[in-house]
Amino acid sequence: MAILYNDRLTERDRIHVDIEDRAYQFGDGIYEVIRVYEGRPFCLSEHIQRFERSAEEIRLQLPYGRKRLEGFLQELIAKNRLKDGTVYLQASRGAAPRSHPFPDGARPVIIAYTQEAPRPLQFLEQGIQATLTKDIRWLRCDIKTLNLLGAVLAKQYAVERGCQEAILHRDGRVTEGSATNVFLVKDGILYTHPANHLILHGITRAVTIEAAKEEGIPCREEAFTTDSLFRADELFVTGTTTEISPVISIDGRKVNKGTPGPITRKLQQAFEKRI
Amino acid sequence: MAILYNDRLTERDRIHVDIEDRAYQFGDGIYEVIRVYEGRPFCLSEHIQRFERSAEEIRLQLPYGRKRLEGFLQELIAKNRLKDGTVYLQASRGAAPRSHPFPDGARPVIIAYTQEAPRPLQFLEQGIQATLTKDIRWLRCDIKTLNLLGAVLAKQYAVERGCQEAILHRDGRVTEGSATNVFLVKDGILYTHPANHLILHGITRAVTIEAAKEEGIPCREEAFTTDSLFRADELFVTGTTTEISPVISIDGRKVNKGTPGPITRKLQQAFEKRI
Repeated sequence: MAILYNDRLTERDRIHVDIEDRAYQFGDGIYEVIRVYEGRPFCLSEHIQRFERSAEEIRLQLPYGRKRLEGFLQELIAKNRLKDGTVYLQASRGAAPRSHPFPDGARPVIIAYTQEAPRPLQFLEQGIQATLTKDIRWLRCDIKTLNLLGAVLAKQYAVERGCQEAILHRDGRVTEGSATNVFLVKDGILYTHPANHLILHGITRAVTIEAAKEEGIPCREEAFTTDSLFRADELFVTGTTTEISPVISIDGRKVNKGTPGPITRKLQQAFEKRI
Repeated sequence: MAILYNDRLTERDRIHVDIEDRAYQFGDGIYEVIRVYEGRPFCLSEHIQRFERSAEEIRLQLPYGRKRLEGFLQELIAKNRLKDGTVYLQASRGAAPRSHPFPDGARPVIIAYTQEAPRPLQFLEQGIQATLTKDIRWLRCDIKTLNLLGAVLAKQYAVERGCQEAILHRDGRVTEGSATNVFLVKDGILYTHPANHLILHGITRAVTIEAAKEEGIPCREEAFTTDSLFRADELFVTGTTTEISPVISIDGRKVNKGTPGPITRKLQQAFEKRI
């Protein structure tokens, strides 16, 4: 299994992660997860663009440009003969004697590898169960960084309650899921939190909004309350590996009739056409 | 230079950090920095106790107990003949295929190493310059985790303004510094943010409060506003490597006369006696 390590493909056991790599000690780095369908990376340029934006936001200087990175990832997918799965891509600020400020002369470390993964067909068809919990993360959730402990703890909280996702709220307003964006349908209108500093600007979120426009479903990027979750006609979450997954219950309370709704189905079909 | 790697001392290049170590991908781990004065670790048991509390809070099961860990660190200090410096100690949840929830069967990875470092005598004597910035970190700053990007960005912000520390505030209330706790003196009374979820419960902070009590200086654990910083009689920050460092200016505005004050000096002397 080949792995991208800076500017070459190599084997996993040839990679040296230093104990003073800033990703290891500070979570000082960024990442992307890219879905691969039948050997083709989905929305690759959107992911790379977001990766570059994340790098800029934390002022991590990537060692090479978009075209070269895309080329490496395509090469990785081909070499590993990945059909259905994901590419995980990460950049760390690099290794340097431990000290908070950006180090002089550290060289960023890029790593990317592939993983086989089937589509979440059962969840797409039957929906998932969610739990509600407080959003305690930092105020720059728009940057896709390696500081993921808040998301980890929320997801673990969900798993322990027999749920597949945790829906997060800040002071009663729903932000997003632990690893997804959240959409609500009420009276034929689609709602989702605006793409500001409180949520990740999901690529599947953007695809969903675009699909809604094309299908003539009005979409409002407005925050909604936790109360409104329980009065929703439909609810779903979106993400790179989650795609468009209906949410059929929250903390054991059914969303509407407890089955995926018609607008969710329509958007799933529209998404399906794009992959 | 020996390094503690799980339950043995080894050399740095013998340590294998997996690319799927959760510290590397999620910042899923905890740490401590312990000051060593003339070969003796300062407040070692307090640090180990906090380390264990951090582990508990993120439910990371440490592979062995307090006594054994303390023994390893003492052995490390002795073997490296560390006189004045620090011990950096970290525990990661371990390596597992990347997925947010806690992995089954991952084994935590413990790493500790030493670093020579002089005491910050110039800062202790002359004081430091600080800058004020927003606290955008998560809401569990009481856990000493590897999710340090917020602190890194704040410290970098300070450095670029020619300052040694960033003082953070949440909605106008001072929480702490990027890697220190903040104390303010007004009319003979010492103020510092209460030890809740918004700040790290600093060990030097606790030592300072204890010293204040012994010196008969009243101390109130109350949050204060950013405005009050500019009306303070004295201001200082505390930390393991920072000790008790006077703050003589904020964003170029002098604190009182711009020189370390008498209560700060008294507390520095009391601290000095304990090390």
